[in-house]
Amino acid sequence: MQSLSAAKLLHESGLSVVVLEARDRVGGRTHTIRNKETKYVDVGGAYVGPTQNRLLRMAKELGIETYKVNVDGILIQCDKGKTNKFRGALPTAYNPLIYLDYNNFMRTMDQWGSEIPADAPWKAPHAVEWDRISMEQFINKVCWTSTARRFAELFVNLVITAETHQVSTLWFLWYVKLCGGTVRVFSTDNGGQERKFVGGSGQISEKIMERLQDRVKLESPVVKIDQSGDNVIVETLNHEIYQGKYVISAVPPILSTKIHFKPDLPAVRNQLIQRLPMGSVIKCMVYYKEAFWRKKGYCACMMIEDEDKPIGFTLDDTKPDGSVPAIIGFILSRKATALSNLSKEERKKKICESYAKVLGTDEALHPVHYEEKDWSKEQYSGGCYTAYFPPGIMTQFGSAIRQPVGKIYFAGTETATEWSGYMEGAIQAGERAAREVMFKMGLIAHDEIWKDEPESKDVPAIPITTTFLERNLPSAQGFLRFIGYSFIFSTSAALGYFAMKKGYVTLK
Amino acid sequence: MQSLSAAKLLHESGLSVVVLEARDRVGGRTHTIRNKETKYVDVGGAYVGPTQNRLLRMAKELGIETYKVNVDGILIQCDKGKTNKFRGALPTAYNPLIYLDYNNFMRTMDQWGSEIPADAPWKAPHAVEWDRISMEQFINKVCWTSTARRFAELFVNLVITAETHQVSTLWFLWYVKLCGGTVRVFSTDNGGQERKFVGGSGQISEKIMERLQDRVKLESPVVKIDQSGDNVIVETLNHEIYQGKYVISAVPPILSTKIHFKPDLPAVRNQLIQRLPMGSVIKCMVYYKEAFWRKKGYCACMMIEDEDKPIGFTLDDTKPDGSVPAIIGFILSRKATALSNLSKEERKKKICESYAKVLGTDEALHPVHYEEKDWSKEQYSGGCYTAYFPPGIMTQFGSAIRQPVGKIYFAGTETATEWSGYMEGAIQAGERAAREVMFKMGLIAHDEIWKDEPESKDVPAIPITTTFLERNLPSAQGFLRFIGYSFIFSTSAALGYFAMKKGYVTLK
Repeated sequence: MQSLSAAKLLHESGLSVVVLEARDRVGGRTHTIRNKETKYVDVGGAYVGPTQNRLLRMAKELGIETYKVNVDGILIQCDKGKTNKFRGALPTAYNPLIYLDYNNFMRTMDQWGSEIPADAPWKAPHAVEWDRISMEQFINKVCWTSTARRFAELFVNLVITAETHQVSTLWFLWYVKLCGGTVRVFSTDNGGQERKFVGGSGQISEKIMERLQDRVKLESPVVKIDQSGDNVIVETLNHEIYQGKYVISAVPPILSTKIHFKPDLPAVRNQLIQRLPMGSVIKCMVYYKEAFWRKKGYCACMMIEDEDKPIGFTLDDTKPDGSVPAIIGFILSRKATALSNLSKEERKKKICESYAKVLGTDEALHPVHYEEKDWSKEQYSGGCYTAYFPPGIMTQFGSAIRQPVGKIYFAGTETATEWSGYMEGAIQAGERAAREVMFKMGLIAHDEIWKDEPESKDVPAIPITTTFLERNLPSAQGFLRFIGYSFIFSTSAALGYFAMKKGYVTLK
Repeated sequence: MQSLSAAKLLHESGLSVVVLEARDRVGGRTHTIRNKETKYVDVGGAYVGPTQNRLLRMAKELGIETYKVNVDGILIQCDKGKTNKFRGALPTAYNPLIYLDYNNFMRTMDQWGSEIPADAPWKAPHAVEWDRISMEQFINKVCWTSTARRFAELFVNLVITAETHQVSTLWFLWYVKLCGGTVRVFSTDNGGQERKFVGGSGQISEKIMERLQDRVKLESPVVKIDQSGDNVIVETLNHEIYQGKYVISAVPPILSTKIHFKPDLPAVRNQLIQRLPMGSVIKCMVYYKEAFWRKKGYCACMMIEDEDKPIGFTLDDTKPDGSVPAIIGFILSRKATALSNLSKEERKKKICESYAKVLGTDEALHPVHYEEKDWSKEQYSGGCYTAYFPPGIMTQFGSAIRQPVGKIYFAGTETATEWSGYMEGAIQAGERAAREVMFKMGLIAHDEIWKDEPESKDVPAIPITTTFLERNLPSAQGFLRFIGYSFIFSTSAALGYFAMKKGYVTLK
């Protein structure tokens, strides 16, 4: 989508473009499959919500409508085999300590995030410190109850399809900030998952391709970029040669390792692109004769924390007219790796069994159809949803992420400064890279490269507000200290070496 | 070297082989440059020592002699601008607490390492736990004094050219174990850096190439491996097509992303190869009119921990006959990234200035020649010395590291079970992969695939022993507790939620 967004803008500006697409289809990490059982189904990126104004604008221009995902009903959190029913964006907790812990976890992420510059996270005041620690370390530091820790782990797994100990805190908090914060990224209503596209998200790329006609070359993986001469020469796996004044690289950073560069890339970029692996997820759609969950008052949104259940998060995937009842679920991170060797039938069975347990009905055991997509297998995606930064990479290498290399500009959604990793970020990055080229060609001014997007009138954002209590309630630890249920944990240390020990005693 | 070791063995066994080499030279991460100023210099992998029996056997067969690196004299550790002079493998400490801390750090690494299976580190009893934590977390847990922590950081930076917070503890301790433990990996005498090759290590690959003649194709980067038919079809960037029954992939895992595979790789391998970046190092050789350090009693081995000094570790690089006096130094990890954009002249100047400070003489300011090699720039190495595993990768993806994919076998030094990352590991891996193919062809038995190597008679290993004291001395913390210089640090916590807090209070 990033390559097509760039090409569309350049084409409309009267420039001559060619899009080289590795696959036999456009869309990349978005992909709409059509068949009689599902009508259509997005097996890749699918959701759109308020504040994703570029994506909403692009869809509208292309005549693609959105519909609201059904969250009318009870949501279920499943933890340690027990189900906790709730309404709203986040699980509720009867235990006040757990409530305080949830509140403090989300609040702390947003507070730290507010210090991180969207366009240069490596310049955050605490960049070095936060980049050294993994999200597991952050969670262990901030969360007091094991219940909140398990929820926090699911939150991270769901948002970036990697493990808490694999990702940098600086990067993760930047990523969440770019989506408008914890509530926006996690919410269906008024959040990142509010809507889907009628007919599927794949149409966006397909309809742009229609406009670009034979300027899009399918099955043309790039193997070589040679910028040693005046023009850039690009060669594909099938030996076709293209020449141009500029190249926009719109693949995730790790996939640019598939290209042989002449001359070699600069040291920092050569190493950066080795350090940003793609996440791991299998997207699974189970189809039923009827939306049986609605009879029980559920909306089919489940947050499942149990290790023995394959799926971590689900949503109702029934069509907007009520036809084709379905539940979409995500096998996340470690579970995607562990279950990738099973057969499709085995995964389906495990999924249905877990849905039956969580929803409390055997109706979940009798699907009429099943679709799935394991993105970890895809040579030309590497994984989904997006690239992640392990600890220590953002501050050591991150500043090279969208620095042009000669005549090559970078447009992956990983280079975006809003909704990076999402379709919105793909369009922002694609259009920005197109305008970098247009600036270089003298067609626009420097201050026109980066462009704010007006808010969509059809899908306006309701501001995310916090209450006085949410802002000012103590953390669970603070609360406990305050009410005085405390006693002394003692640890011994040396009097004579006091200076050495500064900061060594940590209450997690 | 891994590809040539494999090809040599297959060729000698009467099989028909072709070696496709991306560069215009063989040797990969070994590279000997010849010129009148240096005679010859290894700008890549160079050292050989006892227990590296395959490398010693190979060199002997090819008629390449070794010589002992000069460590006759005083070694210098530089920390916080102060120099600490010592003899032996490891810095000494007058402060008994620091001594206990060094001892406990090295001892703990070796003890944990002894639990890790060389051929399957993901099966270690504590694999999941140790893989979740970075070496920074390990160091913070084990080391009590900031002096020992700084030394520990240099130890990690030097051994694997990455940051402590970037690498998995499970992987690092496995890596050190494969070298025979902390003392063997770090030592010059009786360790990994005991010797160099007269004439340079590059000769090994060069001499194998001479034997293989035109079976080695230079400037032939592989872009495609197609195993959808009976034979494997391999295509190079210059459109040459090779057919064979089997392929041995002898590149580091990350470089195999440069190849377009048909069919796609299995999910776990497709993701593993994205997750093993190459380390960062600039190897710098400064040449002087005379070996002035010897006049002062130094052997030119410096361990430099100061952040403002570019080089982390040096050795005497004078030729064995005393000609071409030189100091070789390593710019490690974060410093290699930070200094990669300087000019060669600027780096040289910074290096000489820091040598002058550490050695205490202006003679270091007046080199007669300078050579360097920034491996981070190399498209067909990706970095040096080797690939590292970030936290969480070994247990989630590691078991795929040398699992064949159809007719492709894996021979990178990263797949070795002795001295992985070294020339020794390259030969072990290359020969093992060759024998996997020979087994598959029915030429050898299954139990002949893995082969122990008899000890070199020319370079026997002296066993690394520990003294009763080294094994039984307390840690610095234990010592302090024992002698009773202790007082109470108190932290408050809740009585009613005791179960929740188990393990939350950590004394680092």
